[in-house]
Order: sequence, then C-alpha cells, then structure tokens
Amino acid sequence: MSRMDPREIAFLLDEVLEVPGLLDRPRFAHLDRGAIDQVLETAAKLADEKFGPHYHEADKHEPDREGGTGKVVMIPQVKQAVDAFAEAGFLAAHHDEERGGLQLPWTVVQAAFSFFQTANIATAAYPFLTIGAANLIDSFGTEAQKQRYMAHMLTGRFFGTMALSEPQAGSSLADIRTLAVPNEDGSYSITGTKQWISAGEHELSENIVHMVLAKIKGGPVGVKGISLFIVPRYRVNEDGSLGDHNDVRLVSLLHKMGYRGTTSTILAFGEEGRCQGFLLGEPHKGLSYMFQMMNEARIGVGLGAAALGYAGYRYSLEYAKTRPQGRPAHAKDPASPMVPIIEHPDVKRMLLQQKAASEGALALCLLCARLVDEEKTAEEPEARKRAALLLEVLTPIAKSWPSEHCLEANKWAIQILGGYGYTRDYPVEQYYRDNRLNPIHEGTYGIQALDLLGRKAFMQDGAALALLGQEVQGTIKAAAEVPALAGYAAELGKALALVGETTATLGKAMAGGQAAPALANAVAYLELVGHTVLAWTWLRLALAASKALAEGRGDPDHLNGKLAACRYFHAWELPKIRAQAKLLQSLDTTTLETPAAWL
Amino acid sequence: MSRMDPREIAFLLDEVLEVPGLLDRPRFAHLDRGAIDQVLETAAKLADEKFGPHYHEADKHEPDREGGTGKVVMIPQVKQAVDAFAEAGFLAAHHDEERGGLQLPWTVVQAAFSFFQTANIATAAYPFLTIGAANLIDSFGTEAQKQRYMAHMLTGRFFGTMALSEPQAGSSLADIRTLAVPNEDGSYSITGTKQWISAGEHELSENIVHMVLAKIKGGPVGVKGISLFIVPRYRVNEDGSLGDHNDVRLVSLLHKMGYRGTTSTILAFGEEGRCQGFLLGEPHKGLSYMFQMMNEARIGVGLGAAALGYAGYRYSLEYAKTRPQGRPAHAKDPASPMVPIIEHPDVKRMLLQQKAASEGALALCLLCARLVDEEKTAEEPEARKRAALLLEVLTPIAKSWPSEHCLEANKWAIQILGGYGYTRDYPVEQYYRDNRLNPIHEGTYGIQALDLLGRKAFMQDGAALALLGQEVQGTIKAAAEVPALAGYAAELGKALALVGETTATLGKAMAGGQAAPALANAVAYLELVGHTVLAWTWLRLALAASKALAEGRGDPDHLNGKLAACRYFHAWELPKIRAQAKLLQSLDTTTLETPAAWL
Repeated sequence: MSRMDPREIAFLLDEVLEVPGLLDRPRFAHLDRGAIDQVLETAAKLADEKFGPHYHEADKHEPDREGGTGKVVMIPQVKQAVDAFAEAGFLAAHHDEERGGLQLPWTVVQAAFSFFQTANIATAAYPFLTIGAANLIDSFGTEAQKQRYMAHMLTGRFFGTMALSEPQAGSSLADIRTLAVPNEDGSYSITGTKQWISAGEHELSENIVHMVLAKIKGGPVGVKGISLFIVPRYRVNEDGSLGDHNDVRLVSLLHKMGYRGTTSTILAFGEEGRCQGFLLGEPHKGLSYMFQMMNEARIGVGLGAAALGYAGYRYSLEYAKTRPQGRPAHAKDPASPMVPIIEHPDVKRMLLQQKAASEGALALCLLCARLVDEEKTAEEPEARKRAALLLEVLTPIAKSWPSEHCLEANKWAIQILGGYGYTRDYPVEQYYRDNRLNPIHEGTYGIQALDLLGRKAFMQDGAALALLGQEVQGTIKAAAEVPALAGYAAELGKALALVGETTATLGKAMAGGQAAPALANAVAYLELVGHTVLAWTWLRLALAASKALAEGRGDPDHLNGKLAACRYFHAWELPKIRAQAKLLQSLDTTTLETPAAWL
Repeated sequence: MSRMDPREIAFLLDEVLEVPGLLDRPRFAHLDRGAIDQVLETAAKLADEKFGPHYHEADKHEPDREGGTGKVVMIPQVKQAVDAFAEAGFLAAHHDEERGGLQLPWTVVQAAFSFFQTANIATAAYPFLTIGAANLIDSFGTEAQKQRYMAHMLTGRFFGTMALSEPQAGSSLADIRTLAVPNEDGSYSITGTKQWISAGEHELSENIVHMVLAKIKGGPVGVKGISLFIVPRYRVNEDGSLGDHNDVRLVSLLHKMGYRGTTSTILAFGEEGRCQGFLLGEPHKGLSYMFQMMNEARIGVGLGAAALGYAGYRYSLEYAKTRPQGRPAHAKDPASPMVPIIEHPDVKRMLLQQKAASEGALALCLLCARLVDEEKTAEEPEARKRAALLLEVLTPIAKSWPSEHCLEANKWAIQILGGYGYTRDYPVEQYYRDNRLNPIHEGTYGIQALDLLGRKAFMQDGAALALLGQEVQGTIKAAAEVPALAGYAAELGKALALVGETTATLGKAMAGGQAAPALANAVAYLELVGHTVLAWTWLRLALAASKALAEGRGDPDHLNGKLAACRYFHAWELPKIRAQAKLLQSLDTTTLETPAAWL
C-alpha cells in the first residue's frame, strides 16, 4: 500500500496554488488553514484505514452476480469505505453549507480526493461518479430535482453514474439510440442500452441515479438532438422514500484488465416499457450539460492517473532503498557488499521519471482545480473569464498527459521491482493494469488530441492558447531571475516559441483547405503542447521550491527533490518535443496516404 | 486468436534473408525450398490447432498445485500442444540428422517458432526452454551427457530449464549462493534455492533437466567462481530409465501479471542432501557457457516480444476494419453512415506503429538467427567471425528494442479496441500483460543498455560497432539508388553519423575518467542505437519490397505495406534519436547528482 505524502499536498496548496489567499474570499470565510489541515488529515486517515487495505483484495475478488439473481455482490470492505467517505462529508465537501456541505474550495476537495485515489482508485470511483452526477443536478436541475435526488447523493444514500456510451456508440455520441418519449405527466419513457457504465449496478447505496443521454423522439439528428435525463434505479417518492423498481436491468458485468473493483456494466433501460426519466434542463442541450460533468471527470481522470503513478513511484522508491543488488560501476569487487539498488543511476532515472510524471501531473490537475475555484469565486468577472478560458485549453492536457505518462511511470515501477514487480504479490502490476484504463475512458487519447488541436487551440481566435502563453511567459520571467533556474526558463521559452510556430503552421494549413494533414497528426500536437505545459508546471514547482528553500520553509530534502525533478524533466523529457514539432510542421501525410489494404 | 501471416515469413526468408542461397551449403544439402515450406506449414497448422485455442484458457486457469500434493497441474491442452510440437520434430529441428534432428537452418527454426509464439507465448515457453537447455549440453557436454540427457530432450521425453537467479541474486549473478560440493563418484552435491525458474515444475514431460549455476566450494568469489551443472528432477540411469527423485523440491509457484500459462517457480535443491549435479564442461566457466544459452534466449525474448506485438497488431487491424464508429473530419453529417475506424488517421497511426514495431522486430530477430547460421555454416572463416561479431552488438538490441516497442504496440492494440480492448473478452489485454515480462527477464532493459554501451560498443577497439556501421552503409548505398528510398537513405546516414559522434564522445569520456556520467545514461544510448538499427532494418525491408515489386514477385499490397511502414518509421520514430544524442553528448549528470534523500 502506498500513500500520498502530506508534504506533497501542503507544498502544492501553500507554496504553489495560493490556497491560503483563497480562503480570504467570502465563500470560504468560515474556513482557515487549520480547518483545511483537518480535512486533509481526515482524508489521509480514511484512505489509510478504509480504502488502502482492500485495494488488492477488491482486484482479486471482483464484483460478481450472486448465483441466480441479478444482484451484484462484492467484498464488504468496499461498502465500509464508501460509507465512511460519505459519513465524513466528502460527498458534499464543496457544496453550500445550507445544503449540508462543507463549502470547501474545489482545490482542497480534489487534493483530499487524491489521498483516496492513491490508496484505492477502484473504490474511489464510486464516490467520484456520485460527486460528478450530483454536480450536474446542482448546475442544471430544478429545486425539486435537487431535493429529490441530489440531496440524497450528498449524504451517500443514493449514488450516481454517467450513462453516455452504447454498444454501437462509444466515442461517437452522435450515434446513440437511446430514446425518450414524453409521457403525459412530464416524465419520459426511456428505452435503450448503455454500455461501460461504471458503478452501474451494486448494493452500496439505497438507490443509483443514472445521468442518461438520450434522444427525444422527433428531435434533431446527431449531437444536436441529445438530451440529458435523470433515471433512478428505483423511483423516488416526493418524501424521498423509494418507490417501484424503474425498469433498469443489468444485462451483464464487464470483466476488465484492471480497475476490477469498480463494476462496469451493460444496462438495459425500459425493456418492460416502465423506465421513467426526468429531463434535466432544456431538451436537446444534453451534450453541453454532460460536458460540464465530462470536463470535471476528465480532470478527475488525470488526477486518478497521477495518483496511480504516484502510488507506484512511492512503492518502488521504498523498494529501491531497501533491496540490495549489484555494485557501483567503479567498485565491482564481488567480495564487497551489494548496494541498495537506488544507488544505480538507471534506477534513479526510473524514479525520477516517475516523480516528474506523477508529481507534475498531480500539480497540473490541482492547478486546474484551482482554476475552477477562480472561475467560481474570483471577484473580478475578467478573472473568472480568464480562468474558464485557461481551463478549456488545459483540460485535454490534464486528462491525457497523466494518462499516458503516469502509465509509463507504472511501467518503470514494475521494472524497479524486476521479477517481483511482475508478480501479483506486489501492488505495482495492479497500478499498471488500473492505469491502462485512463487513456480510454472519458474521451480517448486521440479524441483529446482532436479536442486540443481541432477546437481549443483556435477557439476565440486562439485566445485560450494565447492566454496559456502569457501564463507561461510569466513563469519564464520570474524564473529567469533565479540563477539556478534561468537555463530552464530559456529552454521553456524556446519550447513555447516552438508551440507558437507549429500552431501557426497548422492554423494556416487548416484555413487553407489543408485540414486533413493538420488534424491527422493531432496526437503529436497533444504531446508537443503537453510536454511544454509540464515543463512550465515543473518550472513553477521549482520556483516555489526555491523560494521556500530561501525563506526557510518546508523540508529541504522535499524541496530539493522538486529541483531535481525539474532538472530531469528538462534534460530527459522536454527535448523530445522537437521531433513532434518537425513532424507537425511538415504536415506529414503518412497516415492519410496509407490505404487500409496495405496494413 | 491472431496468427502469423505466412506472406510475412516468406518475404523475410526469400527476399531479405537469402535463405534459398543458404540451402546450397553442405549442411543443408538435404533440403530444398519446398521442404522449408512444409516445415512452415506444419508450424502454422500446429500453432493454429494446438497452441492458439487455449491461449486465453491457460491464462484464466493458471497452473496450480494440486490440493495437498506438490504436483503442479494445468489445463490438459498444454500437454497436448507440447506433445504435438515434439512429435513434429520441432525440438530437434536444427540438430544433426544423425541425432534424429531435421538439420534445419536456425533461421527457419526461429521463423517456424514465431508461429507458436504468436499463437500462444506461454505454452511456447516450455519447448523454448527445452531447446535452449539442450543446446547447452550439445555445445559443452560430453558424449555421455548428450546420450543421457540431450537425446531425451530432443524427443520431448525430458524438458529443460535455466536456473540462474536466486531470491537474493537476480541481475547480480556474482552473488549466487547455490553450492556444489564434489562427491567421490565425480558428481556434485547441490544445495541452494533458485527463483523465477520458468517451467521449473510441471507434469508435461517424464523428467525436467535443470541447467543450474552454482559455485564449487572453495572456488573464486564472484562470477569467476560460477560453474554450470546438469541437475535432473529425477536421476537418469545409463539406459535412459528414470531413477530416484533427485531432491529438487518445488517451494512455491509465483503468480504473475501475465505469461500465466508458464509456471514460474522457486525451487529448493538438496534440502535432504541428496541432490546430484553433473558438471557441464570445465569448472568455473559456467557463466560463459550460460551466456551462450542466454544470448540465444535474449534473441528468443525479442522474437517473443515481436510475436506478441504482431499478434496484437493483426487482431486490432481486423477489428479496425470492421468496427464502425464516427465519420471523417470533412463529413460530419450525422445522417451519413459511420465509417470503419481504420478510416480515421489516428487509428492508422496506431496500426502503423504496431506494424513498424512488430514486423521490424521480427525481421531484426530473424536477421540475428541468420547470423547464427552464418557463424556456423559460412565457408570462409572470416565470414563466420564477422557474423559472430555483428551478433554480439545486435543481441542487446534484438532483446530490448522489441521488449519495449512491441509492448508499446500492444498498448495501441488495446487503444484501438477502446473499452472492449480493456476487457478480458478480447486477447489484446493479455498480449499486453504477457509482453510486460520481456523487458525484465533474461537481463533487464538497464542491463542490456550497460551490455551495449559498457561492453559491446567498445569491444575489440570498437570493431563490432564499426562492422555494424559498414552493414548500415551498405544498405544506405543501395537505397540511395532507388529514388523512392533515397530520402530515407540520407536520413539513416545522418542517424549513423550521430551514433558515431555520440559513441566517440562517450568513449573519450570513459577513457578520460568520466565513466560514471557516460554509463549513467546507457538506456538513452540503447534507444539511440536501437532506433537507428530499426531504421536500417526498415530500409532493408523497403529495399527488398521495392525490388520484389519491380520484379513482379509477391503480393503488391503486402509489399507496399513495407514501404508505408518504412515511411512511418522515418517520419514518426527516427527523429526521436536527436533528443537522446543530445543528452548523451552532454554527459548529463542528473541521475548521478540526485541523492536518494531527495527522491
């Protein structure tokens, strides 16, 4: 079992993300820094005591249908964990006090959540989805819907899901077939099959509230005809008590490579014609509503990938410190004692990759959470707009970069443990299997790349990317004044210029009828911008660490580690972007010009 | 189930590796091209019928100890498969006819073996190890040992293992503790514990012949005191009948992430003081003997990684051709039908990566097998020496490059299948789990990097690398004359120059007391040289395809696919080496200068 180092979160909140300043805002006036610490300590304790201990067990004994019945059973520790999570108030942590919430900054909520994801990503998925579904109702639901559904989700009486995909429509939501036919009482009759519905069936809560995308009969074709419905597993009476089963049937459980503790389901809605759905917001706006949840979920996926990367890093770090094997290159006398493998430079490389990937990804995702707080609570409307715009362009990166590079981190964690790491007696292989999901769900790697290049890079005449550039320039300017960081600042400046040139070339191509070759290599663009954003993140972390070191705050080893990881990232990682920029600028047509028959 | 495309092997043998010419040599005078085809067809048929069908089943029901006994039981299809393999003569395929072998070229044996590895890598591991162990006895054993052990391994009556690692000594063989004490009858008493012994216990054969590294009591410390012993599970009488159990006990089975069909064991030798070992060759030369097997095994690991990469490629290719999802960027009308996902450029990219990695790796490993044939059968001693030298420098690359990049290929195979690929209903997740072993066993990725940079690059004053350079230059020269390939030839020339410069810088550093920073980044060197070798391999394949196309041989789609993959490799992969060269030439000390306490 690996745990989040509290030094890590404290450093990010206090030295990087200016959370103490955030607490001065009216919404957070009831909080002080000590209250935040209490929240984080509670999260650490629950993660350690309730989530971590059954991580392996839940993988080994995945949820299953009880013989004969459709009931999904799982090891009891899962329910104990999610109950404890709800009891401590984490499901309602960012909600208004008047709704029973703790009214915490989203940054703190996400920081606290990273403890649970590090301890047990699969069990953490149940509250993760519930929080997301409740947020949707909070944003777009009527007061009656909030009372009837959301209120019970905040206490953990009901859990939630997001039900988008169908067997024939995964990435292509335009092609969903689930149908909603209006009833006289204002509800809709829902019929259709949804697939890959995580937490779609279980006995962890009294009820499950599915957020279902469906097409209202007679509406426009494609994404413009998609609406969003609240579809409970059991109907809910006005007084909150449960009514009839709502004709949502578990077709089957999906058996995954990893993330086994989280049920993944195929669900049939309305096979008996009795499935009631309740429209959320306006008709035909479902996809844009769902995108609120999805954008949140995407950053959450990034955070989960970071947490898994981090867990593997910490586990392999401890192993490397204690496993003796071999001798240094300059002292091969076999009569001399072996050294701990952390003394071998290539083991350090593997640790630094993991550190740079997972701590960098964690910082980036929490930075996104901080932007959510800014968007919601900044005094100046202009500041809110800027935060929202920056979040737009960072979201595909915060989702994808951790999914790819923290998976790589888990690969190196296994490698450090060698044969041991390849056995199921150690957790690193499970981190790797679990993390392999992250580049797939909530929009694949390729979809994120198209979102970044095809949508975000040129939105509002490139305003989002320009804003990101200004932020990066600000960090470069500050770092240029610190002698130890000036070299990195210069390299980041070059990287930013390369992003600029490349984007200009691609924009020109797209405007000039060359959209196909520009978009064909979108994944290379995602990598180019992603690595640049991480180099920026690392320079921010290094700046903050330098400052804290100079001013005598924090643990010097921990802070020096930040400088080392920044150095690693600039030496080993950032130079990789030149190859991507070259490919992109040449508008390479290899993929476009290879017919399927040649493959 | 995926299968090796027979066009692929025919192309490599006939158009690239000049196997028809090889058959003119005296050792192969009994063979013609038709006989080779028969062998390959038999391999394809057995792989399809006996190996492929239980690939998933053997993973799902991994070998286990029968309740109460130490007996290892597994699904019956494994024995049926290995029996059929032995019956068809594949265990003895390259051995002399007078020993009951088919006296086939090693290139053909390995090509045939790739069918089995593609179909079921875990079951193929049993014959793989047996062939390797028999080769050791063939090379270093006495005639009596060959009669008593090897003869029965060639028929499949006995199987073999290689028993090197111990719980405290994995990569560091200098530190093994297994002891051999001479007995009066010339045998040795063996005591010690071996770990990670694949195929170390099973009921697939009458006997298991362990090739065990041990230290003769009183011998030199470290690797210079290691000897090699034949240690059978059951003693073998002179007439070949089995005697007493030889005091080799299964301590436990190891439960792995993948490769589950192959038992991995901890074995205790001589707990009752009755374990007899028989010295192979001379005392204290065990490690150099074992390196013969290990070098073979390393290329075999590369071939296995290639086969897994290839299997995932073929599976995801078929899926991509038939799965409809989404529409092209220029035709987003949701009323239009969806297209097969192979029409999306990023899916083509993922297929091209897999194709370039797996077919390139397959070609490289078979090229190595061809060098083994050259080393053994070339008429001129000079040609034999050159082949051996080239093999030295290519071995760490043939082991490592496929292990890393075909694992990446399997990652993309999962990605193409999306959520489906992440479930255990499709084989791609198993390929990925199985392939994750390959960068670990038979010398880790880091060990291979040190072998390449610390030993091979500068052996015989750099003669091996210089020879590789000459071979690459030969290909460049030939490709420069083909207009469609001249651009690639020029790029490969630059890559070769970069390897040369970088090697010179590192050599100078090592000679000048800077060995630590030079060796610290050995993995970057392995990637630099590895990618250059693969670019060379792809140019060779493209040259051969061009020639065959021009001369009207082969399937044009298949041959054009080679040109497309060569193009992909040069556009997307080869440019990555500049970042590695830069890092290496700067003698970057990031890893060396990061103390453990900062991590």
